[in-house]
Amino acid sequence: MYFGSDNCGPAHPDVMQALVDANAGYQASYGNDTIMEQVRDRIRAIFEAPRAAVYLVATGTAANSLALATMAQPWQTIFCAPLAHIQVDECHAPEFYTGGSKLSLVGEGDKMTPDALSRTIQSWAAGDVHVSQRGPVSITQVTERGHVYALDELSALTDVARQHRLPVHMDGARFANAITALECTPAQMTWAIGVDAVSFGGTKNGCLGVEAVVFFNPDHAWEFELRRKRGAHLFSKHRYLSAQMLAYLNDGLWLTLAKKSNGACARLAEGLRSLPDCHFVAEPQANLIFATLPRATHQRLHAAGAIYGMYDGPVDNGDPDEPLMMRLVCDWSTTDEYVDRFIAAALG
Amino acid sequence: MYFGSDNCGPAHPDVMQALVDANAGYQASYGNDTIMEQVRDRIRAIFEAPRAAVYLVATGTAANSLALATMAQPWQTIFCAPLAHIQVDECHAPEFYTGGSKLSLVGEGDKMTPDALSRTIQSWAAGDVHVSQRGPVSITQVTERGHVYALDELSALTDVARQHRLPVHMDGARFANAITALECTPAQMTWAIGVDAVSFGGTKNGCLGVEAVVFFNPDHAWEFELRRKRGAHLFSKHRYLSAQMLAYLNDGLWLTLAKKSNGACARLAEGLRSLPDCHFVAEPQANLIFATLPRATHQRLHAAGAIYGMYDGPVDNGDPDEPLMMRLVCDWSTTDEYVDRFIAAALG
Amino acid sequence: MYFGSDNCGPAHPDVMQALVDANAGYQASYGNDTIMEQVRDRIRAIFEAPRAAVYLVATGTAANSLALATMAQPWQTIFCAPLAHIQVDECHAPEFYTGGSKLSLVGEGDKMTPDALSRTIQSWAAGDVHVSQRGPVSITQVTERGHVYALDELSALTDVARQHRLPVHMDGARFANAITALECTPAQMTWAIGVDAVSFGGTKNGCLGVEAVVFFNPDHAWEFELRRKRGAHLFSKHRYLSAQMLAYLNDGLWLTLAKKSNGACARLAEGLRSLPDCHFVAEPQANLIFATLPRATHQRLHAAGAIYGMYDGPVDNGDPDEPLMMRLVCDWSTTDEYVDRFIAAALG
Amino acid sequence: MYFGSDNCGPAHPDVMQALVDANAGYQASYGNDTIMEQVRDRIRAIFEAPRAAVYLVATGTAANSLALATMAQPWQTIFCAPLAHIQVDECHAPEFYTGGSKLSLVGEGDKMTPDALSRTIQSWAAGDVHVSQRGPVSITQVTERGHVYALDELSALTDVARQHRLPVHMDGARFANAITALECTPAQMTWAIGVDAVSFGGTKNGCLGVEAVVFFNPDHAWEFELRRKRGAHLFSKHRYLSAQMLAYLNDGLWLTLAKKSNGACARLAEGLRSLPDCHFVAEPQANLIFATLPRATHQRLHAAGAIYGMYDGPVDNGDPDEPLMMRLVCDWSTTDEYVDRFIAAALG
Repeated sequence: MYFGSDNCGPAHPDVMQALVDANAGYQASYGNDTIMEQVRDRIRAIFEAPRAAVYLVATGTAANSLALATMAQPWQTIFCAPLAHIQVDECHAPEFYTGGSKLSLVGEGDKMTPDALSRTIQSWAAGDVHVSQRGPVSITQVTERGHVYALDELSALTDVARQHRLPVHMDGARFANAITALECTPAQMTWAIGVDAVSFGGTKNGCLGVEAVVFFNPDHAWEFELRRKRGAHLFSKHRYLSAQMLAYLNDGLWLTLAKKSNGACARLAEGLRSLPDCHFVAEPQANLIFATLPRATHQRLHAAGAIYGMYDGPVDNGDPDEPLMMRLVCDWSTTDEYVDRFIAAALG
Repeated sequence: MYFGSDNCGPAHPDVMQALVDANAGYQASYGNDTIMEQVRDRIRAIFEAPRAAVYLVATGTAANSLALATMAQPWQTIFCAPLAHIQVDECHAPEFYTGGSKLSLVGEGDKMTPDALSRTIQSWAAGDVHVSQRGPVSITQVTERGHVYALDELSALTDVARQHRLPVHMDGARFANAITALECTPAQMTWAIGVDAVSFGGTKNGCLGVEAVVFFNPDHAWEFELRRKRGAHLFSKHRYLSAQMLAYLNDGLWLTLAKKSNGACARLAEGLRSLPDCHFVAEPQANLIFATLPRATHQRLHAAGAIYGMYDGPVDNGDPDEPLMMRLVCDWSTTDEYVDRFIAAALG
Repeated sequence: MYFGSDNCGPAHPDVMQALVDANAGYQASYGNDTIMEQVRDRIRAIFEAPRAAVYLVATGTAANSLALATMAQPWQTIFCAPLAHIQVDECHAPEFYTGGSKLSLVGEGDKMTPDALSRTIQSWAAGDVHVSQRGPVSITQVTERGHVYALDELSALTDVARQHRLPVHMDGARFANAITALECTPAQMTWAIGVDAVSFGGTKNGCLGVEAVVFFNPDHAWEFELRRKRGAHLFSKHRYLSAQMLAYLNDGLWLTLAKKSNGACARLAEGLRSLPDCHFVAEPQANLIFATLPRATHQRLHAAGAIYGMYDGPVDNGDPDEPLMMRLVCDWSTTDEYVDRFIAAALG
Repeated sequence: MYFGSDNCGPAHPDVMQALVDANAGYQASYGNDTIMEQVRDRIRAIFEAPRAAVYLVATGTAANSLALATMAQPWQTIFCAPLAHIQVDECHAPEFYTGGSKLSLVGEGDKMTPDALSRTIQSWAAGDVHVSQRGPVSITQVTERGHVYALDELSALTDVARQHRLPVHMDGARFANAITALECTPAQMTWAIGVDAVSFGGTKNGCLGVEAVVFFNPDHAWEFELRRKRGAHLFSKHRYLSAQMLAYLNDGLWLTLAKKSNGACARLAEGLRSLPDCHFVAEPQANLIFATLPRATHQRLHAAGAIYGMYDGPVDNGDPDEPLMMRLVCDWSTTDEYVDRFIAAALG
């Protein structure tokens, strides 16, 4: 019963098979492999964006940092939620890649509101050489708490950005989970409402390690290529990134896998709701659950071998009724049987 | 007949099988996988360095840049050969990761001499706040021209570094090829003669994309970990790096593969020597050949479908006798039959 | 009637005379002038810190950024108040000089509390490679709102820093004003309670442009010198920085001038208190006043030629009773007559 | 007899008087002072460049680094002579301000030739993501060895830059000395032959510490302002920079002073030529002399109290006839009497 993270499970067999298949003969290196051509075409088709610039890197932090560095000057600030991955989980990679941009935190928690975004942007006076200059807005979709911005919520944010002529980045490490939750098209969730660049995640959803960076306006494509190389993120044997991504996109595998993880998460949430003392910190909308359970319930779960993230503690000692917060994550490999065993263990 | 690079051929089947085998069940992420424990033990054993800090990254540029950034302050200069990969092939990744170190070029070409190293170090006055401060010496073994420093040549360089109390880095993207050529142990080629850190390459020698960074003195291990994460080079699904490296080290596969590529290269060199107008730019010692052939010979080779690097041109037009420089690279997958066809095509 | 800033008035005649006097004969350059020796001795004496490393730069932003860069690694976060100068007025100079440190904002407004500092420090889990690493605490004394931390308030902050083994920096752009307000010694306000480095301001208090950076522990002195040179802040004709600072320290001029500006500010505050509709945003403790006046009063002041900072607007149009916030700053040259004319104009 | 450097003598009395005069009343800060308006107009007039963007900083390293950072991307290389100040005397300030640009050294010594420049530029293949991208050419005029490029030599260099569409920077720390030597106009030496930006020095030629940065094309003016502020080089009491520069430009003082230093240098060179064993390393063309004298002569000079730079040593011990290299610098305050005493002492 492993609900620790969507980066601890295996890659999907189709993705692995694609790697094996790609491992034959010679291929041009450094992104010039023939598989990459197909990846580019496929992503442009999926996003209905025939001019888009498309690149692959191996980590989500690289995707975010390189995309943001291409969009932000070092004296500009990036606007994001206080719990955004770029703020709390990347050990200053955005600051490093941008050369010293600041992250201005919008409101509280994992989601930005248009009002808070507007206020934060205006807190930096435009045209004043002394202060942080206004830069890109970075939206995390799915958020770090498992929320999915609705399309109108996204539009409201991108409207604020547009009013201030600021570019918009989307951290889509769980892009497929968001699309699945919203039942919309990639275009609808991105360029159609004013998103300029996307980190399109594969790693958390069945790949070994590959993320696409998509710029709908290719003006800075060459700059991105230089930044990727300079950041040591241009793979010589690039075919192995391409092969993963192509398999991930083939036959809608990326959506199939997200449906599985979101579905497992919904089943898990339903089970938790049946428990007497479970309280959701955030309403689960994708493949993440943040909720509290009494200490005694955690003790039963731990005893049964369940593995998941804990934000309070200790589990072993203390009032058995005290609520302790946990994070549960489902990935494509989470089975119904796993979920049901978890709930059964929680019930005791 | 592909002699273009050692990053264009396939990964070895054993390495690929290890990936497939690693793709089962759950594993802790971010380098905490159980396979990495074995990698660490194995590398320490191979290097006879039980305290060594061992890390994996996916590209050679990342290995070099992160290692050097851990060894050099931004106001220090790195000493290297003018043709070193860190100088000519990494688009300022060392400058980026160090935060602005300078590369001071030692002598001419691909190999440093102790005299030139000594002169270059002394060209920067110690203790003068205005000038570049003296920093690490970076030695490329195998060099970018296919030379292999003999052990006494290496010792002579590290002696100079030690006299100035400067740390020594070895760019071992082709470490296995060098060990094979020298018939020595990894310890003999590194810490025993004063090398402090090594980029230990796997990618060019049968892996998909993995390099180890080995610090014989682990004092800066935590700093390296922070730099790796900040550089977006810490893989979440790290097991896939570990699995490659473990397979690469198992049963001496790394040496077996280097013997194959060095052996193919020797056969190719022998064949070239039999040609009337072939001149070696550098004496081949590992798996790289730099040599000239008359234009007419290149035309025959191209017509026969041979692919390899050209430094002069154009091939199509001009004096048929004019010598044009080429680079030929053999990897583990280069067969005798390939080599023989190449020579046959050259003979016409 | 100029209350716009303490960087708009003239330098004190003694400081200017010292420049003139220093302008004779030859002097060694780059900080090796004989005047600097006296400055070093004098500052060590004033701070009762015989081992302190003492350096001069020409701007407060340089003093802060270089000091913090010497104290913080790029992957560490600096803890400061949301209104700290380093956060809101230096256009990312701290991020630039540190190579990408983050600023973690403590609580609200211009002053940190020990509880808020403790919470913010603990919000970054120690030893987690993914997050911002804990770095120095930067305390602004006098704050940007004109508050002066009492000694026990400072001690409470430095205690929190010490518990987490974090170094402490003090932005003392208005150091003299704080000492004057607290009636304590420089030692009592700094190293005696755990401050490790100080930006000791001269520019705002009667100099042309000079700030000292004082490290009570000289371990990083040479690193600071390299950072200062690399930042282009090492003056060739350094004697002109030294001469300013020496004159500033001679016969307690720095304290005399701060008494004048604090005194003028107290007189101004007293006058404002006599106005029917003046409300202080912060209780004035040094040479800065943040207060509101009705729009009609501002209109009278503007008509009378008063110049000062406005945070709300417009002044010209709107409800005459609406309170609008202003910033008033006194410097050493502010006369009683100026103050009295200001109050008279406000009264109408 | 001080010939150590042009940064060890006093500022000219007119410049100092201007400082004193500027020290009255209130002035807007941060470059908005009324004196700066005059400076801007005056520099535009002197350069016959009415659209030029003009900024002041306090050090030559700041002028060079900020100008180059505005002209070069971090992945671009700057082309300069091996002895350029930016390469050998700025402790990586250019690398720091550009965020990691490389300096590619052109030929040998202090002067670039068009052929060497062309070769060095072409050593970096255009459009190859792996290598240093071609960036600005930086020309030092007067060079670090005291040479002055003739106008046709400059044109030949800027022609090469233009062929490759690379911008050109001129490090004019001794701009006035060059103009004096060439007897040309500032326009003729800069924009008329394709120079895009100039570091126009005042510090070495009679000011306390002020340099102008002049961009003939103002497109990047705002970026420069942000970089200057972020670099902590925007002075709050900016009037004191403005006042120096205005006095320096008034009535051609900058040229008058350069004539004095060049003239003193010519007299000194003439004297040296009369010595039996003096050999010039470089033909003196401005205010710097590099020459050798026998050890015995140096001993006489040292005994007479002459101070100047030595590149070989020791002076005290060794063959009295051995030639040792020295650097002699004249500034505006060097008198005929000084020069004559120096020669007399050398003669013994």
